[in-house]
Amino acid sequence: MPYPTASPRNRRENSDGPMSSNGMKSASFFGELMQTIAERGRRLLTVAPRQQSDRKRKSTSELCELLLSSHGEASGTAIARDIVARWETFDPAARLGFMTMLLDGFGPDETRLEVAIDAYRGERTPRSLHELHEAAEPRRQELIRRLNLAPNGVAALVSMREALLGMKAEQPALEAVDADFAHLLGSWFNRGFLVLRPINWNTPANILEKVIRYEAVHEIDSWDELRSRLAPEDRRCFAFFHPQLVDDPLIFVEVALMRTTPSAISEVLEEGRELVPAEQATTAVFYSISNCQIGLRGISFGNFLIKQVVEELRRELPRLETFVTLSPVPGFSEWLARERNTGASAVLDEDDRRRLDLLDDAQWSALPEKVETVRPAMMNAAAWYFLKVRNRHGKVADPVARFHLGNGARLVKINVLGDRSARAMSQACGLMVNYLYKPEDIEANHEAFATRGEVATVPALQRLVKGIEARGARSNPVVPAEAPPAERP
Amino acid sequence: MPYPTASPRNRRENSDGPMSSNGMKSASFFGELMQTIAERGRRLLTVAPRQQSDRKRKSTSELCELLLSSHGEASGTAIARDIVARWETFDPAARLGFMTMLLDGFGPDETRLEVAIDAYRGERTPRSLHELHEAAEPRRQELIRRLNLAPNGVAALVSMREALLGMKAEQPALEAVDADFAHLLGSWFNRGFLVLRPINWNTPANILEKVIRYEAVHEIDSWDELRSRLAPEDRRCFAFFHPQLVDDPLIFVEVALMRTTPSAISEVLEEGRELVPAEQATTAVFYSISNCQIGLRGISFGNFLIKQVVEELRRELPRLETFVTLSPVPGFSEWLARERNTGASAVLDEDDRRRLDLLDDAQWSALPEKVETVRPAMMNAAAWYFLKVRNRHGKVADPVARFHLGNGARLVKINVLGDRSARAMSQACGLMVNYLYKPEDIEANHEAFATRGEVATVPALQRLVKGIEARGARSNPVVPAEAPPAERP
Amino acid sequence: MPYPTASPRNRRENSDGPMSSNGMKSASFFGELMQTIAERGRRLLTVAPRQQSDRKRKSTSELCELLLSSHGEASGTAIARDIVARWETFDPAARLGFMTMLLDGFGPDETRLEVAIDAYRGERTPRSLHELHEAAEPRRQELIRRLNLAPNGVAALVSMREALLGMKAEQPALEAVDADFAHLLGSWFNRGFLVLRPINWNTPANILEKVIRYEAVHEIDSWDELRSRLAPEDRRCFAFFHPQLVDDPLIFVEVALMRTTPSAISEVLEEGRELVPAEQATTAVFYSISNCQIGLRGISFGNFLIKQVVEELRRELPRLETFVTLSPVPGFSEWLARERNTGASAVLDEDDRRRLDLLDDAQWSALPEKVETVRPAMMNAAAWYFLKVRNRHGKVADPVARFHLGNGARLVKINVLGDRSARAMSQACGLMVNYLYKPEDIEANHEAFATRGEVATVPALQRLVKGIEARGARSNPVVPAEAPPAERP
Amino acid sequence: MPYPTASPRNRRENSDGPMSSNGMKSASFFGELMQTIAERGRRLLTVAPRQQSDRKRKSTSELCELLLSSHGEASGTAIARDIVARWETFDPAARLGFMTMLLDGFGPDETRLEVAIDAYRGERTPRSLHELHEAAEPRRQELIRRLNLAPNGVAALVSMREALLGMKAEQPALEAVDADFAHLLGSWFNRGFLVLRPINWNTPANILEKVIRYEAVHEIDSWDELRSRLAPEDRRCFAFFHPQLVDDPLIFVEVALMRTTPSAISEVLEEGRELVPAEQATTAVFYSISNCQIGLRGISFGNFLIKQVVEELRRELPRLETFVTLSPVPGFSEWLARERNTGASAVLDEDDRRRLDLLDDAQWSALPEKVETVRPAMMNAAAWYFLKVRNRHGKVADPVARFHLGNGARLVKINVLGDRSARAMSQACGLMVNYLYKPEDIEANHEAFATRGEVATVPALQRLVKGIEARGARSNPVVPAEAPPAERP
Repeated sequence: MPYPTASPRNRRENSDGPMSSNGMKSASFFGELMQTIAERGRRLLTVAPRQQSDRKRKSTSELCELLLSSHGEASGTAIARDIVARWETFDPAARLGFMTMLLDGFGPDETRLEVAIDAYRGERTPRSLHELHEAAEPRRQELIRRLNLAPNGVAALVSMREALLGMKAEQPALEAVDADFAHLLGSWFNRGFLVLRPINWNTPANILEKVIRYEAVHEIDSWDELRSRLAPEDRRCFAFFHPQLVDDPLIFVEVALMRTTPSAISEVLEEGRELVPAEQATTAVFYSISNCQIGLRGISFGNFLIKQVVEELRRELPRLETFVTLSPVPGFSEWLARERNTGASAVLDEDDRRRLDLLDDAQWSALPEKVETVRPAMMNAAAWYFLKVRNRHGKVADPVARFHLGNGARLVKINVLGDRSARAMSQACGLMVNYLYKPEDIEANHEAFATRGEVATVPALQRLVKGIEARGARSNPVVPAEAPPAERP
Repeated sequence: MPYPTASPRNRRENSDGPMSSNGMKSASFFGELMQTIAERGRRLLTVAPRQQSDRKRKSTSELCELLLSSHGEASGTAIARDIVARWETFDPAARLGFMTMLLDGFGPDETRLEVAIDAYRGERTPRSLHELHEAAEPRRQELIRRLNLAPNGVAALVSMREALLGMKAEQPALEAVDADFAHLLGSWFNRGFLVLRPINWNTPANILEKVIRYEAVHEIDSWDELRSRLAPEDRRCFAFFHPQLVDDPLIFVEVALMRTTPSAISEVLEEGRELVPAEQATTAVFYSISNCQIGLRGISFGNFLIKQVVEELRRELPRLETFVTLSPVPGFSEWLARERNTGASAVLDEDDRRRLDLLDDAQWSALPEKVETVRPAMMNAAAWYFLKVRNRHGKVADPVARFHLGNGARLVKINVLGDRSARAMSQACGLMVNYLYKPEDIEANHEAFATRGEVATVPALQRLVKGIEARGARSNPVVPAEAPPAERP
Repeated sequence: MPYPTASPRNRRENSDGPMSSNGMKSASFFGELMQTIAERGRRLLTVAPRQQSDRKRKSTSELCELLLSSHGEASGTAIARDIVARWETFDPAARLGFMTMLLDGFGPDETRLEVAIDAYRGERTPRSLHELHEAAEPRRQELIRRLNLAPNGVAALVSMREALLGMKAEQPALEAVDADFAHLLGSWFNRGFLVLRPINWNTPANILEKVIRYEAVHEIDSWDELRSRLAPEDRRCFAFFHPQLVDDPLIFVEVALMRTTPSAISEVLEEGRELVPAEQATTAVFYSISNCQIGLRGISFGNFLIKQVVEELRRELPRLETFVTLSPVPGFSEWLARERNTGASAVLDEDDRRRLDLLDDAQWSALPEKVETVRPAMMNAAAWYFLKVRNRHGKVADPVARFHLGNGARLVKINVLGDRSARAMSQACGLMVNYLYKPEDIEANHEAFATRGEVATVPALQRLVKGIEARGARSNPVVPAEAPPAERP
Repeated sequence: MPYPTASPRNRRENSDGPMSSNGMKSASFFGELMQTIAERGRRLLTVAPRQQSDRKRKSTSELCELLLSSHGEASGTAIARDIVARWETFDPAARLGFMTMLLDGFGPDETRLEVAIDAYRGERTPRSLHELHEAAEPRRQELIRRLNLAPNGVAALVSMREALLGMKAEQPALEAVDADFAHLLGSWFNRGFLVLRPINWNTPANILEKVIRYEAVHEIDSWDELRSRLAPEDRRCFAFFHPQLVDDPLIFVEVALMRTTPSAISEVLEEGRELVPAEQATTAVFYSISNCQIGLRGISFGNFLIKQVVEELRRELPRLETFVTLSPVPGFSEWLARERNTGASAVLDEDDRRRLDLLDDAQWSALPEKVETVRPAMMNAAAWYFLKVRNRHGKVADPVARFHLGNGARLVKINVLGDRSARAMSQACGLMVNYLYKPEDIEANHEAFATRGEVATVPALQRLVKGIEARGARSNPVVPAEAPPAERP
């Protein structure tokens, strides 16, 4: 699922973001209890002016060395704060310079490493191994740990990594720096430290604003729209938070409580629909999952999130029986176009191809007749796409499918024209699918998928695939033209 | 400062500790906001009974392998919980077996490591270095990270390490396992994640109970005594907490607000003393600092704690000018005895020795005349002890002195008979000292101490030392007979 | 300041209002700590079905008698809840019937009252007086007290009174019922029970939504507009809340932190203005005060609110020196029109009248020349209006002036064209004024105003008035045509 | 149930009571969210020194008049604070003087009252009635309302009433003043404003300290004893709080979760008993209910408390089936002694009397044989005592029985030697009884008791009474010698 592109992200003009703190305004999501004292506690000792001005004269690289030195023990918070403050004023060139400095100047101590290797090869003891491991650790790992001493250090490091990810495309060597950021952030954002919170109409506006901004699947274009997703009694939303990134969700999922599994997003988001009394709902529909922090890309929360929300909802509403998604299929159009262009493909037979030709009429979806013509061919194609198509790594090609199947869900339904929005028509010819989260199957599904690549699905879809195989079609890994593996939630 | 020896008194008999959770009783220190949902969120999916019983049949070692495998991604929380639950039922032998298994079975993949070393020596690139570092990482590090998925995972890991520390004396090889625990706990208990909280008479009893239990310097023997240290307006107490170890302080410091720097603990703790209106106090006296979690030994919080408390108190009470400790001198008696026994020592001259002979009279401290006779010799000896005596590592011999001087404090006063308790008489001939925390000097003091071993002190004490040097005494590292370096806060 | 006329827009459509409660959604402004348990605690005992159906067969009047009887002691909560639930389904006719029933059927016990009067006249003792007072108390007072046993009883009673106020115009006899509601609500919303809370961008959306709805002075037409009033560091907003009306503010004031006293609302609300760093502000401008609960009309909070906000701001920002309003003048246009129509008035002389004739040109305010012509005459008229014009009760005629002067503020400046909005042009010819809250003058100002009707103001305005008096003008109480005394905050 | 006598009540030496507030120490039970801002908001405007010293020169009576005057509107908070501050320094004589002043100087305006009576008798309209009711209201009622403006006004008024209750014995005329305090406190402590909170081992120490102090039934003599009543998983405690009396419970009940209904307090409080896993408990035993605020005497909370706790426990532990008390019988010994002394009483026959003579042996309860001899006679007597004995008001004589039966409970069991403590032996010959709270019977039981005086009980006890009636005994109201009706919880 893609991140929101640029735009309203850096709305920090009013200094109410996590980077600042203002006594009267600090009533935060987790309560003043925790925060005010924590933050006040982080304010710094009035250091002697001499030391401050000493530091001002140093280069950033010198400051980083100072932070790693014994000075760092006495004055780590102050030095870390200074480095973070510099970073925040850096232009893109200076930021690239900073990361390059981390790459070149804060790798491991090579001499020590050579000695450690020799020692280990000399005698393979736990001690020599430990020294080898330590010696091989880039010095920037400890530097990153100490930068976390700065007030709001975690937020600063997440934002540094966001910038770093942007640089990697052009500077592949920075991958090594990124690996260190990712390693430490992964350890600190360990599931054990996350907190699940409901998001609703009683949630502070500064959090809700971020939900609007980060929603990546079905855009929220106004506060009224937001209210209609959070306030009604048949809606729920949950997010993971980290104690040190207060007021900034990591990932959230929007849920509709319904009486049946929906086939189209319009059933979920329709204005003026009849509300379902929460205690009468039987089906919880996860219709949108969005990551919020670009700087945490690759650190997976979605898996845990869905399972816990299932558990949370079951507890609140014991009548709920079915936990299911209504999900986009971001890679379908591209694959289908390629398939249609490949004369030789046995996946689509002549009849399928003729039917799918209607897709070239931009109006096809508006004409019920054409839709019905397209439908069987598209079902065939989609079944094959999910069950047989693999990317160059041998994984299921569709990124959203990869995510949910990897979590142990089962693909249960393909919905033609489930989403008529321009984006969905363009990415997926309007297709949406339902993945079912059945608690008692999750582990086995996951295991079969992880170890044998088996896609858990339903007989109807398996039959479609068998029909196609009967024509002689074979599963060939299809490498998406140039696309990077899409981001998973 | 030592940890309580008699160890966790009565720990958890009523199952209200962090290991359990009970709906109605969960109103915790950081508020239900955060905790209840966090904990409920951690409850587990109802897994298929088959899988549960599958796991029951596996050995603990197999479970650990399962947690590291792809299963761990789908069912990590459940597997981690199972392992932690087993650990909690283990007897000491089984616990030793568990740690030995981590040592022998969860080191690095040696084949991969050899390949990585060769690759690195072949071409020293960031990539080959990264692979080397990863390959050298014992597999138990990732195992520990995943154990943290268990409900209350952090508490469980801290308690595992507490047990592990106890095993190390007899099984030095376990040092390698301990290094991995220490590494991860150090990263997770990074200062950036700690929360400073005042402890007072409004604090929940389950926290206060721990203050009584953990107080390591001046014992608290009843709730009335506790109240007298927390409730009066001229008393303060602060602790660090970790968001995942709710209700369990990591370290705390007790503070007395006074009008002068005290020379004896009796001035601080005297019953029936006159209260000082907080806004009239000029001096904040840190008279007790205690670590609480044995399992976090070696991860230093005290340094940060004192500095933040200074900052906190300054903000609340701008009239405060002096921030000073009243500290024990745990190594003095032992050193002095050795010195007195060493005929040749030039540190004590004949006059000193004669005066100090009075110490052999158990009643000396009760007789003002004898005290006055002893005093000048003891001042001489103590000045030398702090300024000149070093341990076998070349560090200041007294562990408490090492802690405060290392934080950038200055030794400002030596108090003969500052503490007449049996323990103080035995450890330190009753000596107490004051270390001064002067914010604008801290960084320079620390630096001089860390890099050049210079002890920041006052001219009066330097003069005493110069007098002794004039007799020909020389600073000789003195190795404490067999004592391990005492625990620092 | 008027209440929002269009009345409770969209109130409660999604059942998340105070009338309902939903476990997962109950994270309220004052924290779950207090609320969830309070509300859960209010859920009712499972009463025997027989009793419930017994109650269903009773008339509302019988239910009210039951609530007042001894049944009320055992089952008060259930009976009160039933009555409130009925009220909520009542149409306007049934609501009028309910209030009429309270008027006719729940006055005092007249027999008892006659006896009590005789007894008191027989012997004027404290006991006979007490009995007289009790006997004269309408029985509906105790009924209202017992209705408060219903879950959300306070909210229900406030909403009942809102309806009652609407009925009074047509049914003046209901004044007696209203007096009893007002008496009890006045006692329960005693200042001693109110809680001051900052409202900012971290405030829950359900509260902010009400700020948008209730803002009565300078309309807020979008969430972006709201954000611009709450989030910037030079803005503040404070509200009073009542512990039993959680999530519903009673009154709020919007504050701008500035460097000077503004002469026009555009200086305050201008888009794209430069932010004032909070700690550099010298002037706190109260530019909007709005009551929120129609059902609490006549119970005054504004007085306390302003003074406490002054105190709160002083504490946060010691550099603030000036606390001043920028206020509308709702009665000015009407008075001025009357004055201009009265040929004989000595308040306006010929020159003034000629200048003010320009006001009849709808475009006058757009033409600087005309504005300058009008200005001196309008200053004259306005000075007289504030200092000399009185209503039929002999009070200062302008309701906003009455409020602020009654609070002890001083009228310090009259701003021609301070507000060019259509409403302000129509009500006040665009006039706005500044009232100064100088803490050390408040008590004396209030006293002079309350006892001698003296308007605290500045010499410049007094000189204008003296000039007019020199022409022979006299202060004549002017009765506003038909207007009820406008609502004070 | 009696209040604790004098003793450790006024433990306010350290100024951490509700009367003071200290920034760093204000972390209160309901969270800083609510309190800190509320209290800070109550701090007062810096009034002009002139006004302060003006007030200092006034008598208390003048200050009270000032508070009632228009001054009270502008400066009510300051004046109220001054009066409360004076009260707190008053010695008993001055306090009596203050109350006498309220009696004599702040009754109603008699002239106005005479006019109002005449007007009402002239024309009995709602308006003339309203004026009569207002005119009959003692001026001190409004004074008390305005005193509530003082910071911590409610706490001050509750404590004033506590003092007042102490004066009433000697000054019966103060009853009139007390009626006004009681009226307003009753309105403000209306059930609708109370908050139910669990009390447990996570509760702040300052609250727990009050539980120790206020426990009136089975004394808590140490923090260990307290812990044993709160921490184990088969114990619960709940209290009512008022938002303006933060940190001070109003009433609390202690609950034991058990497998059967206990016959003796030793079964409940026995040290070393086996814990009952909470989810296995079938019986909730209310074994102690204590009022906390003498100043709220006569304002009944106990009724609501028990019912809500029943509801709360049912929700947490659906397996609970039985809700029952284990209660003292404070009036039994006295009544029995009188009965034994009355030769003519038919309640006790010869056999009974002979058996009961054993009670005169102080050791009877230690000798099983004697106990068995006494038992049948005591059962007879007790059954009669509960079912037939009435006080001079015609009510059930035993105060605890009156309370529970009035709440709708049923007397289900009489336990000979249920409590062997000195107090219970002296008050009740060791008797304890069980009252059963069966939700579906409560309303009917209450109704039968309230209107017809019927005691809900069990056939076994009714049979005993019938046996006694068969002997010719008749129910005669027995007036307790001189005792005032004992306090009900």
